[in-house]
Amino acid sequence: MSDPFVLRHVVGGGAGALSGLDFAAKDLFDVAGTRSLWGTPDRAAEAPIATAHAMALLPLFAAGARLVGKTVTDELACGMFGENPHDGTPDNPAAPDRVPGGSSSGSASAVASGAVDFAMGTDTGGSVRVPASFCGLWGIRTTHGRIATAGVMPMAPSFDTVGWLAREPAMLARVGEVFFGPVVPRLPRILLAADAFALCSPAVRDAALAAAARFAATPIRLYEEGVEHWLATFRPTQLNELWSTHGEWATRPGRRLSPAVAERIALARATSPSPAAWPAREALTARLHALLADGSMLLIPTVHDLPPKRPAGVESQIEFRDRTLALTCIASLCRLPQISMPLASVDGVPVGLSLIAGPMQDAALLGAALTQEVTCSN
Amino acid sequence: MSDPFVLRHVVGGGAGALSGLDFAAKDLFDVAGTRSLWGTPDRAAEAPIATAHAMALLPLFAAGARLVGKTVTDELACGMFGENPHDGTPDNPAAPDRVPGGSSSGSASAVASGAVDFAMGTDTGGSVRVPASFCGLWGIRTTHGRIATAGVMPMAPSFDTVGWLAREPAMLARVGEVFFGPVVPRLPRILLAADAFALCSPAVRDAALAAAARFAATPIRLYEEGVEHWLATFRPTQLNELWSTHGEWATRPGRRLSPAVAERIALARATSPSPAAWPAREALTARLHALLADGSMLLIPTVHDLPPKRPAGVESQIEFRDRTLALTCIASLCRLPQISMPLASVDGVPVGLSLIAGPMQDAALLGAALTQEVTCSN
Repeated sequence: MSDPFVLRHVVGGGAGALSGLDFAAKDLFDVAGTRSLWGTPDRAAEAPIATAHAMALLPLFAAGARLVGKTVTDELACGMFGENPHDGTPDNPAAPDRVPGGSSSGSASAVASGAVDFAMGTDTGGSVRVPASFCGLWGIRTTHGRIATAGVMPMAPSFDTVGWLAREPAMLARVGEVFFGPVVPRLPRILLAADAFALCSPAVRDAALAAAARFAATPIRLYEEGVEHWLATFRPTQLNELWSTHGEWATRPGRRLSPAVAERIALARATSPSPAAWPAREALTARLHALLADGSMLLIPTVHDLPPKRPAGVESQIEFRDRTLALTCIASLCRLPQISMPLASVDGVPVGLSLIAGPMQDAALLGAALTQEVTCSN
Repeated sequence: MSDPFVLRHVVGGGAGALSGLDFAAKDLFDVAGTRSLWGTPDRAAEAPIATAHAMALLPLFAAGARLVGKTVTDELACGMFGENPHDGTPDNPAAPDRVPGGSSSGSASAVASGAVDFAMGTDTGGSVRVPASFCGLWGIRTTHGRIATAGVMPMAPSFDTVGWLAREPAMLARVGEVFFGPVVPRLPRILLAADAFALCSPAVRDAALAAAARFAATPIRLYEEGVEHWLATFRPTQLNELWSTHGEWATRPGRRLSPAVAERIALARATSPSPAAWPAREALTARLHALLADGSMLLIPTVHDLPPKRPAGVESQIEFRDRTLALTCIASLCRLPQISMPLASVDGVPVGLSLIAGPMQDAALLGAALTQEVTCSN
């Protein structure tokens, strides 16, 4: 048993649309009166005591939700598995012998265990979507730029978004209504990205495709430019931004970074800007925005494989990361909202299916998830 | 004469699309090997020496542009006039007895004086658009979230954008092509926001409307919800974010904030979150995105009045700010790109006209500006 909380700390609770609900926030979100440690012990002495809550928490407090604590994150949010050598690896209640996924690991674990009704996370390259899939939860990554990241640790700002996790789509939508207004259940035309399913392990592919049948989706080919082009556009841009945000801090003498994160920072330092990546990203964004402009949504598997057994380790994560990024980079590069839904499983281990909507279609995406409520198999 | 540069420092220059061009960057952009002082002397001892360039500069360096220095900004970017008591008020070469506008004051001044070919700024609530209008320049604020703000001082992150200024639309577009790909001259359907022009002083209104005649625009009513509703949506949200980003730092003992900025920080501290503001912002965004979804662009005056004579002072700025924000908050709240064009004047003092485009239509906006090249009166 590893505690998903790094700090028990109560704020808020009152009248409003979220009255009576308890939530947790990843330890990247500032909470007034506490330090945001970002998953690293080196911040314990350095981090200022926040005097203001992160902006994204204010609508929740205003709606009467009660924060009960801050949750474990991968160190500097640099991880996809949730294995933090400093704070421990939170449990995955849906698959106890497997990792919970990261970097919003403690948020997912706290929701999956029932400790809270919902939890806030952040998603740059999959950090809400991956733990949602691994822990059998509903998780949303919002349209880039739509919810303020003020008071949240920056990681790669042109990709950083706020998101949250819940056990039921109704709860996911209820939180969303505080940010976006009314959510109406409605399933639009669904486009099934056949080549995205083809990237999965055979067992995940079969389970995901079987679950996808409920959507009566139209198959399309997504990666017209080739998967490698998508990854080659994502990788240098994200690493350059990571170097901008944390390079200076992370390379000061005496840092106690774990080997996995030190490797990421070293890679970020060594990654030259790729002039081709900027127009490439814009072209991918323009194509997907046009594809989804009529309100259609894209159906993909959230992650290519089952959560690895714990401890998974660094080498395992490096190999896993690139294959998962081929799926998660779609919404990240194109600034799009995405919801992971726990609609499939392999031998009882959760497998997430995802819908991606056009820009600013967050409420519509939550509405689409609502239509799946009664058929959820978890 | 007040130097628009806080630091002369040369980086880059080489082969590429921007070869031979010199530029400057507002002192909110990290430049490796230098400190970003953000317009306040209190950062001189505290700011780390940046080890990485701000992300937004990388495409410029990759294209061969040469940075020649960092420019004066309003303190913590909290200002609309460009009057910085620590670093001096940069000149406005287009109207020497008037303020240059801010907070990208030094960037505008350096471009207007001919010291550089273009200059990078930031725009949260008008910080590129206002100095562009005051100094008779072309200035773009990009779609929120489109250009990474990694390595740039955050101010109110859900509004913060990167932008730039130039003396000619061709130069504005040439820089834009590095970020967005090809720009094609084309003027779409233009919607003239009649009630926005009505907010101006009589002289500015008359000059702006006369210049607007060239667009054969369709008049519309923009502020369906009332101007005060727009401002009441913008103000608390921006101030809450300002408190999140700088409240803790700015209220530490011993800070040498100018009275104007101390007043902003105190106001930010005292401003409670407005639960109504979030859904209100989303509703405004949805309405404007729908209005501009067919490629139409909105025509408004950039600023409601001429640049005040210098020194303008704090009280003058507080009164001016709210009236200007009624115009600049449109793109800020709705995350939209906007270009200010120096197409009008009153007794030789520049007056900017602005086009606002739909989200991600930055290249189309630059293309629209290109059609105005030969008719520029400055």
